[in-house]
Amino acid sequence: MHIEFEIIEKFFSKKKIKAYKGIGDDAALLKKDDNNLWAISTDTLNEKVHFETTTDAYKIGWKAMAVNVSDILAMGASPMFALLAIAMPKPNNNWLKQFSKGFFDCCKEFNIELIGGDTSRGPLSINVTVLGDVNKNSVLLRSNAKIEDDIWVTGDLGLAALGLKIIKKKIEAPNVITKKSINALEEPKLNQFSIDKIKSFCNSAIDISDGFVADLSHILKASKVGASINFKDIPIDKWIKKTGHEDLALYGGDDYQTILTASKKMRSKIEKLIHKNNLNISRVGIITKDKKLRISDNGKEIKLKKGFTHFEKK
Amino acid sequence: MHIEFEIIEKFFSKKKIKAYKGIGDDAALLKKDDNNLWAISTDTLNEKVHFETTTDAYKIGWKAMAVNVSDILAMGASPMFALLAIAMPKPNNNWLKQFSKGFFDCCKEFNIELIGGDTSRGPLSINVTVLGDVNKNSVLLRSNAKIEDDIWVTGDLGLAALGLKIIKKKIEAPNVITKKSINALEEPKLNQFSIDKIKSFCNSAIDISDGFVADLSHILKASKVGASINFKDIPIDKWIKKTGHEDLALYGGDDYQTILTASKKMRSKIEKLIHKNNLNISRVGIITKDKKLRISDNGKEIKLKKGFTHFEKK
Repeated sequence: MHIEFEIIEKFFSKKKIKAYKGIGDDAALLKKDDNNLWAISTDTLNEKVHFETTTDAYKIGWKAMAVNVSDILAMGASPMFALLAIAMPKPNNNWLKQFSKGFFDCCKEFNIELIGGDTSRGPLSINVTVLGDVNKNSVLLRSNAKIEDDIWVTGDLGLAALGLKIIKKKIEAPNVITKKSINALEEPKLNQFSIDKIKSFCNSAIDISDGFVADLSHILKASKVGASINFKDIPIDKWIKKTGHEDLALYGGDDYQTILTASKKMRSKIEKLIHKNNLNISRVGIITKDKKLRISDNGKEIKLKKGFTHFEKK
Repeated sequence: MHIEFEIIEKFFSKKKIKAYKGIGDDAALLKKDDNNLWAISTDTLNEKVHFETTTDAYKIGWKAMAVNVSDILAMGASPMFALLAIAMPKPNNNWLKQFSKGFFDCCKEFNIELIGGDTSRGPLSINVTVLGDVNKNSVLLRSNAKIEDDIWVTGDLGLAALGLKIIKKKIEAPNVITKKSINALEEPKLNQFSIDKIKSFCNSAIDISDGFVADLSHILKASKVGASINFKDIPIDKWIKKTGHEDLALYGGDDYQTILTASKKMRSKIEKLIHKNNLNISRVGIITKDKKLRISDNGKEIKLKKGFTHFEKK
């Protein structure tokens, strides 16, 4: 949910003077103390855009928090505090009760304290701001991928996008897949444990909200590098692969998994950690000097769609 | 825009452990360093609720930032950083250009740096989060009004509410008043200079977003005190007084002026500063032990309406 901020950015080009790092990553960075930074992220979910009118309020509450936590984790940071701003047409206590349950369950999961907020009347919309902290030497910037870095991806891709297709009745799937993919869409589970285990060996990271291709492109653009990806290594759900819907994993978005890059020298350490902790992390390719994104399947290059923004999404 | 957060609060009662101060004031407080705190506030403006579809985008941009700055100033803090989350039905460059101009003019006015944000598709809605800093000994909490404190108010009250009535064609006013009041509604000017001059002598403060009576009540409730107000001393615009619309000043909201309380011992110092700097600050009454809000006109008590929330507003 970041690329579109360019439409605001283009109307100003102020120098960042006081901030450690401003616009252009998963979260902004401010000095916290001599050794640590605040990572701050804000994201909004709107009815009929980011969730359906029929979506369970519990899941909306969970996801409103989770999408921000995902940004904070992708900075290598640990979430700490949140602010919540809700707009709704009129107070609905039943809805709010369920929403709050999901929201606070997610807060609890990631040890986050709600410190403030705002409610207003308006079309249903939930904005969350999360603050986390990160050691300034451990921060994972999009702009820090190095040539020959391995590219790692957490979890499985494409399920959330499949869930949306199923809800929109554009794809039919078996019950188990239907349930799993709608859950992935509506109640994303984040891989904090996996990220925390390997992040100290990594150079850069981004969370996958716009889709694997689009978000990897953000790293490549910010780091002024390219990437060579082995299609077979991309962690795509089996049913999605079997039915030929791999585009959902490449372009689908809403996965809230994380792409990380790390020096080849760290490969054996990371592999040991994956093995020891049974982490679902895949090595999918390498960063290249040539500033292009190439995805190859059995030596044959796959033609890529242009990365999309949320505005182009529907 | 704070009282309604109670509808969220009532679904949880978590202890604040890590935060310096959580929900319940104009802004949340976090430790910044040994001597200073971060004050963090979030507020949302929604189309057709907080502004009309026809409102100039420049003014929406200004106000979206200003209402948050108002919260930060009311904590005795100085604004520093902001995050902006906009939802809009589709990208509209002309609108965004004007909006950004107003938004960044307000940033410039208060020396604020935009450090991040999010855009999404949805009904037009603007959420801003502002971070400011304040010395921990100078922070102005709602809960710190002391018995016999003088009650001070910046600026003139009722103009913004009059502006809304004029737009809704419920009141007609001369051109000069019409322009002035619609400006007060759509492009609120804040009294940072006045607040900064006297804040070190004050005990508590709140900004007037819900209306003088409602917001003063928030101080009284949080401080477990009452107040005795002299109606004639409330700074009400002359035309509003002349035409008998004083209720707009008492209950109207959207003034974005500030109520401050300070020990009687500070009165002469504050009066000197007001005189020397030609500040528009009025002394309107005193804090009482008796936990009631009384407004008297020539010794006769005025019967008060119940303070309203945004949900009850329209």
